[in-house]
Amino acid sequence: MAKVLITYYSQSGNTKAMAKEVEEGAKLTGAQVTTKPVGQVSAKELLDYDAIIIGSPTYYGLPAAQIKKLIDESVEFHGQLTGKVGGAFSSAANIGGGNETTILAILQAMLIHGMVVQGTAAGDHYGPVSIEAPDNRVKMQSQALGKRVAELAIKLFG
Amino acid sequence: MAKVLITYYSQSGNTKAMAKEVEEGAKLTGAQVTTKPVGQVSAKELLDYDAIIIGSPTYYGLPAAQIKKLIDESVEFHGQLTGKVGGAFSSAANIGGGNETTILAILQAMLIHGMVVQGTAAGDHYGPVSIEAPDNRVKMQSQALGKRVAELAIKLFG
Amino acid sequence: MAKVLITYYSQSGNTKAMAKEVEEGAKLTGAQVTTKPVGQVSAKELLDYDAIIIGSPTYYGLPAAQIKKLIDESVEFHGQLTGKVGGAFSSAANIGGGNETTILAILQAMLIHGMVVQGTAAGDHYGPVSIEAPDNRVKMQSQALGKRVAELAIKLFG
Amino acid sequence: MAKVLITYYSQSGNTKAMAKEVEEGAKLTGAQVTTKPVGQVSAKELLDYDAIIIGSPTYYGLPAAQIKKLIDESVEFHGQLTGKVGGAFSSAANIGGGNETTILAILQAMLIHGMVVQGTAAGDHYGPVSIEAPDNRVKMQSQALGKRVAELAIKLFG
Repeated sequence: MAKVLITYYSQSGNTKAMAKEVEEGAKLTGAQVTTKPVGQVSAKELLDYDAIIIGSPTYYGLPAAQIKKLIDESVEFHGQLTGKVGGAFSSAANIGGGNETTILAILQAMLIHGMVVQGTAAGDHYGPVSIEAPDNRVKMQSQALGKRVAELAIKLFG
Repeated sequence: MAKVLITYYSQSGNTKAMAKEVEEGAKLTGAQVTTKPVGQVSAKELLDYDAIIIGSPTYYGLPAAQIKKLIDESVEFHGQLTGKVGGAFSSAANIGGGNETTILAILQAMLIHGMVVQGTAAGDHYGPVSIEAPDNRVKMQSQALGKRVAELAIKLFG
Repeated sequence: MAKVLITYYSQSGNTKAMAKEVEEGAKLTGAQVTTKPVGQVSAKELLDYDAIIIGSPTYYGLPAAQIKKLIDESVEFHGQLTGKVGGAFSSAANIGGGNETTILAILQAMLIHGMVVQGTAAGDHYGPVSIEAPDNRVKMQSQALGKRVAELAIKLFG
Repeated sequence: MAKVLITYYSQSGNTKAMAKEVEEGAKLTGAQVTTKPVGQVSAKELLDYDAIIIGSPTYYGLPAAQIKKLIDESVEFHGQLTGKVGGAFSSAANIGGGNETTILAILQAMLIHGMVVQGTAAGDHYGPVSIEAPDNRVKMQSQALGKRVAELAIKLFG
């Protein structure tokens, strides 16, 4: 059974609320899903999962330093995440607020790890973006991300 | 008097409507402003302006091929746009629809020309993004872009 | 047997030379590989393949307008490329010349199509970059891209 | 006299060596230049300068968490950096190693602060990229960045 990790940094609670929706979508597939804040995830632990989904508030068009710290520490295991599935989501203060670039920054780090990422033709293409607290659109997009990543992990890892 | 060119590609009319607002903002500064569709602008003509603002619909997270064609043709004058001021705006079908990356793609091309670009701390940071037809938020952001670019051109070129 | 399309735009011949190496790498996997210039590929034809790899020279930090035109035309089949595997490569005039952003621009368009992309932990992370004509490093990176994309397509499509 | 801050994070010494060259280029203009490691710069201190140049190693296609921490802390002064001039540089392990995206990530944060950034038509367009220790090309590109940013700051702030 494919194992999915959802980790996030959240100050206002908006990114955490998105994580819950991503989790719900991932669980629909039957995958084994773990969700926890980034402070409780060690770089070594990333090796235990088939898929990793990271959420961050949009801080200056990039993931929060707390997220970046985990990414930097993962260099100790460089090469060992190859082939795992990745995904990303972000909450922001406003449209055009740097949310797409925050998501792409996380996806770029995942590509550099040799990971596999997938967009969607419907809606928030790179990953879900919430403007302030998640509304219905964001909830559906977040569930879709969880489902999409978990389904791809199941295809690749059973 | 600083000379500002606003050029755009528009199918639905949304990007054209944004261009009108950008123009209005730029004119507030007293700058001399020219607005025309990209099909009526030659690469050579870019040399005649102190500032160039480009608008495009979001087509797969990037400017339309019609905009890219003008950028590619500008290679004939590579180096001669150095120091001019640039700006960009985009209309899109949905939030998270690739609009930020469309704007950044245009700004990247401008940086490669040695041009000067400025973001904003208030609102659509990289440049205005419209979701479907411009609403009041988008009109104000578009006017702010025109004003910002024209003011910087006036500072640099009088 | 997974079907892979490699298409490219090339003026100087450098991007075409990279395409040959990508093809060689893809063929090692037993996948059925087709390579042709972008002018000979219709948007409709993209539906026939399990994986699509696109190469472009670096023109102002973005793919050539000829590549963008094909991407824009593919909107007619929006949603129908979902789940296919993608990859990208670029040749450039110099280091720091906008080559990474050219590759990422292509990958972003692929994500918006709902496609699956993979980076590499070894070497040119987002996709191979040639500075002028391909040297041995670039040849190996290009072969690795072809192999990686074809292998992922075989895993997903048999 | 325009005041320029150059700050950097460096583990191997390569980014620090680039900072020295950037400093040399900036000093040629007569600007008042301060260079120090990111650990010695407070967010508040950023207000004291007309131009800010940031250097980072390429860590997963993004600036180091130490750089991101300073950027995140600068939110306390959001809006107060508007109009200042910015620039960025990066050292990396290999070509196509995420160096351009590292520089662009820093420039994006600067745009979100309302800052002004300029590329170059000659060489490393977004900012200088070193592959391992700086060679002559990198030294010249780094000096050019310092000179370009300081000159623009002098034009705008005297």
